[in-house]
Amino acid sequence: MASDTRARMLEATGRLIRERGYHGTSLNDILAASGAPRGSLYFHFPGGKDQLVIEVTRSSVADVAAALQEELAKARSPALAVRRIAESIAEMLEVSDYARSCPVAPVVLDSTTDIPELTALCRQAFEEWIGLLREAFVRSGIPEKRARALAMLVEATLEGMMVICRATRDSRPMLLVAAELEAVLEAAVPEKAGKKLASRA
Amino acid sequence: MASDTRARMLEATGRLIRERGYHGTSLNDILAASGAPRGSLYFHFPGGKDQLVIEVTRSSVADVAAALQEELAKARSPALAVRRIAESIAEMLEVSDYARSCPVAPVVLDSTTDIPELTALCRQAFEEWIGLLREAFVRSGIPEKRARALAMLVEATLEGMMVICRATRDSRPMLLVAAELEAVLEAAVPEKAGKKLASRA
Repeated sequence: MASDTRARMLEATGRLIRERGYHGTSLNDILAASGAPRGSLYFHFPGGKDQLVIEVTRSSVADVAAALQEELAKARSPALAVRRIAESIAEMLEVSDYARSCPVAPVVLDSTTDIPELTALCRQAFEEWIGLLREAFVRSGIPEKRARALAMLVEATLEGMMVICRATRDSRPMLLVAAELEAVLEAAVPEKAGKKLASRA
Repeated sequence: MASDTRARMLEATGRLIRERGYHGTSLNDILAASGAPRGSLYFHFPGGKDQLVIEVTRSSVADVAAALQEELAKARSPALAVRRIAESIAEMLEVSDYARSCPVAPVVLDSTTDIPELTALCRQAFEEWIGLLREAFVRSGIPEKRARALAMLVEATLEGMMVICRATRDSRPMLLVAAELEAVLEAAVPEKAGKKLASRA
């Protein structure tokens, strides 16, 4: 049961940070949301809130990376993978009643730069996610430098749309914008551009 | 001097929220940052922190709208306006040592939905900013429906890049991604597409 309490505290911390940010998540909130007794906090997490946040951010970042990797591996093209990723984010927003979005953005915007391990995790999160997109784009034939710019464009758009969809309580714009990203990615793959030119001639 | 204290409190609130979010900004932080005496708080802001945040968010949203409008009005094309906007955001990030970004995103990600006036302001902010971009895109000849999708793409990208640039402490990706947005916008203007087709024939 001890490890169950630990898991519930991490789960609650992750959910609360995604919903209300780092500063909006107090130890009391975490205890209340996880139903864990106060005494168990420093038993499981001697480093207190920061240890909880660092652990849960690390695991959330890995979860996002795994989901990205899965979509990128199974889709027929990067454009289709981006559509699927956008669809699953739109679903997450709807299911959570627009309370749940990226696990990293709220930690970054809360200026948690006084916690170096957390700062490093947030930087690495974006480097990893953008890296996964970039590699998939390169595999599809997009030149290296362009692939990096497009990977950033895609990651930034998804991040920004999560904020906009939460603010407007509407997930449809996520799909509208994903369609624009798809078009950009399709046009960036040299083979496809070649095919189009060939069929036009 | 009374109105000077009021202005300083609003300025401090706006700066702190951009840097640390809604929940990360306490009344004590606002008093310390503005140098205002505690007694002046409820004299100037009988509604306390929420009144301060609502007032400063309203004025920050208007400032961003005015800056957007100015860039869109003076640039020769929407693409060049977007480049200029991205450049000025990159400069803001650098000058603030990556502590300052959008005034609305942290309020949205902090789930301040229990303050209906603030929730409405955040929704209206994105509607207004996206609306300004959309109108400029339509004026440049981009069809209405496409202009809306591209306005959302641009706004989302700028929002997302602010988070990514803060996390990675690097503003150059903002310009890299802006170049991609420029290309999309240039290709979306029918006259230009027409010219290209004509010169190819």
